[in-house]
Amino acid sequence: MFAHMSRLAVQYGAVNLGQGFPSDPPPAFLLDAARRAVGVSDQYAPPAGLPLLRDAIGADLGVDGADVVVTSGATEALNILALALYGPGDEVLMLEPVFDVYVPQARLAGALPVTVPMRLTDAEGWTLDLDAVRNAVTPRTRALLLNSPYNPTGTVFSRAELEALVALARQHDLWIVSDEVYDELYFGERPVPLRDLAPERTFTVGSAGKRLEATGWRVGWVACPPGLAGNIAAIRQVGSFCTPTPFQVAVAAALPVARREGFYEGLRAEYGERMGLLANGLRELGATVFEPRGTYFLTARRPGWQAEALVRDAGVAVIPGEAFYLNHPAPRGLLRLAFCKARAELEQALERLSRLAEVGVGE
Amino acid sequence: MFAHMSRLAVQYGAVNLGQGFPSDPPPAFLLDAARRAVGVSDQYAPPAGLPLLRDAIGADLGVDGADVVVTSGATEALNILALALYGPGDEVLMLEPVFDVYVPQARLAGALPVTVPMRLTDAEGWTLDLDAVRNAVTPRTRALLLNSPYNPTGTVFSRAELEALVALARQHDLWIVSDEVYDELYFGERPVPLRDLAPERTFTVGSAGKRLEATGWRVGWVACPPGLAGNIAAIRQVGSFCTPTPFQVAVAAALPVARREGFYEGLRAEYGERMGLLANGLRELGATVFEPRGTYFLTARRPGWQAEALVRDAGVAVIPGEAFYLNHPAPRGLLRLAFCKARAELEQALERLSRLAEVGVGE
Ligand SMILES: Cc1ncc(COP(=O)(O)O)c(C=O)c1O
Ligand SMILES: Cc1ncc(COP(=O)(O)O)c(C=O)c1O
Repeated sequence: MFAHMSRLAVQYGAVNLGQGFPSDPPPAFLLDAARRAVGVSDQYAPPAGLPLLRDAIGADLGVDGADVVVTSGATEALNILALALYGPGDEVLMLEPVFDVYVPQARLAGALPVTVPMRLTDAEGWTLDLDAVRNAVTPRTRALLLNSPYNPTGTVFSRAELEALVALARQHDLWIVSDEVYDELYFGERPVPLRDLAPERTFTVGSAGKRLEATGWRVGWVACPPGLAGNIAAIRQVGSFCTPTPFQVAVAAALPVARREGFYEGLRAEYGERMGLLANGLRELGATVFEPRGTYFLTARRPGWQAEALVRDAGVAVIPGEAFYLNHPAPRGLLRLAFCKARAELEQALERLSRLAEVGVGE
Repeated sequence: MFAHMSRLAVQYGAVNLGQGFPSDPPPAFLLDAARRAVGVSDQYAPPAGLPLLRDAIGADLGVDGADVVVTSGATEALNILALALYGPGDEVLMLEPVFDVYVPQARLAGALPVTVPMRLTDAEGWTLDLDAVRNAVTPRTRALLLNSPYNPTGTVFSRAELEALVALARQHDLWIVSDEVYDELYFGERPVPLRDLAPERTFTVGSAGKRLEATGWRVGWVACPPGLAGNIAAIRQVGSFCTPTPFQVAVAAALPVARREGFYEGLRAEYGERMGLLANGLRELGATVFEPRGTYFLTARRPGWQAEALVRDAGVAVIPGEAFYLNHPAPRGLLRLAFCKARAELEQALERLSRLAEVGVGE
């Protein structure tokens, strides 16, 4: 679906608010560090990651570097966890809408992805149905796969919600895989890291690509419950041996700089404004916007707007809600729009959508 | 075993002829291309690889770029092929000594690694036992996993041997996974690419890390039989999404330069000399050397030399033959030494070994 929309976007010369990668370049302090590392640190790194990067991630997250394994993006971290934690006959609980890759990863590991739908109303937006989660647990459930800030809904779960989920995980002895790749991209209160509530069972997945605007560099990580990093690193070694050494060196240098120099605050301020620009513009065109608390995506709907028609008739590529639904019907007309794009692109997208509204196409 | 020897190497301040990564930096034309790509091509690439890199690899190998999938090193290519081609109950035929990662990859896919030992005699060195390979095929055999030039033996299979293996694969309808990461590292005749003999069933695995002396950049590939790249790319996407974009751009620029400017000829000439230096030096110390036709490793043995003792008593780290044996006993006293190291390192290693011989330790 994502690839399909990207192809259509190119075909129709569309403004691409589909795939989640930023239009801005990575920060200079990251680029400079990488240019310095190329030609110096070019050979294999240890499969678990360079000690200096493991320690930098550990220091940033407030965990021991020995519990961190460096991976080739969060995608690989999630895949390794699937292979490590679930096998044939096991069930993995995840919420729906679901970030697409969770599903084939569970299946590749031989496990069954079981999904619980989020509730969506125009008045309240997206809400978690805790009872539905509780009811979905079976004796075969092995893990709870959570994502906060949540792509595509933009939800940031409250401490009370997370505590209820942790209690459930403890009751049934479930692993928690916490996909926190948007941990620094939030617009209200700071998201609560799940590992703070359940350090003994939480694997925290992170992504330098998302934090530092370099999605193509493929530096991710998983912070493991104490004592389990060795098992995770062993699978990681078999999968792709190690993460590119020069980018490990660069990210290790960049993480403390980003923290110290307020890079994330700047990112949040900037993306908060772009989100407002897009949300307000969409509302003016008659759309219902479910304003996100985090991530660089928003969801919205408007009678008559449909993803394939928007790319064809307006030249604006977005992702249809159906892309995130597996077992349940997607909310009617749901669209996901990325606002990690340049302001000019967001303005152009709104302008194109407004012309579509004027001529009444799709009404 | 590799990690263990690397740890001991550090502990004893040893010259490290263990792990296979070069002491020399990557060539300037590759480094410059990477420094230019950083800051320009920093976001997600398509999972199958950037079209310009797929085409550059295709042009280099003489295949269609559409049949090439870019991976995070040859390791990931091999792992994806394991997941794609074998499942529970399947058998995979491989030769022993075996490059270590093949075994856990087959097991992770649920398949059984079945190994056929190479013959080793002081007079003839390493030879392929074709009858033993034929006898090892069962109705459950799915694939033949071959490696030429062969790590650790240094064997380059002859056209006649490869034709016999292809005939066997055709007879039993087996896939051929041909690990050709050392395709440009040979010291006699150019190795015959298996895809030339069996294009309909051969997956060729390659590595820019090995070719261009940048093992830590993690750019590898698989050239698939026509029509199968889409299936391989689908698994690749789930595993780690894509290979780092800046290094894809750099390798795409470097591959034609390396070919045009005779980089591989230079590499072969240089490593040929280092191999001679190490082989002659070892012979002078009384070792039997099995001179390689390709790769940057040689195997050797000498009564009294044993890997753990060498690192401890001589300060020279090598890999013991046992690291490459799974089902059969390793030839007594077999050692693998990497000669992709600086001449000074090779000379120092020989010097240290000679002092050990003088005092008679380990004799
Ligand atoms: C929720 C979520 N998890 C994981 C990823 C993958 O991150 P990475 O690029 O580090 O593999 C994404 C990317 O869009 C994502 O949205
Ligand atoms: C035979 C063989 N195949 C594959 C690999 C892995 O290559 P890469 O570093 O591209 O993953 C190696 C590395 O030593 C090797 O010797």
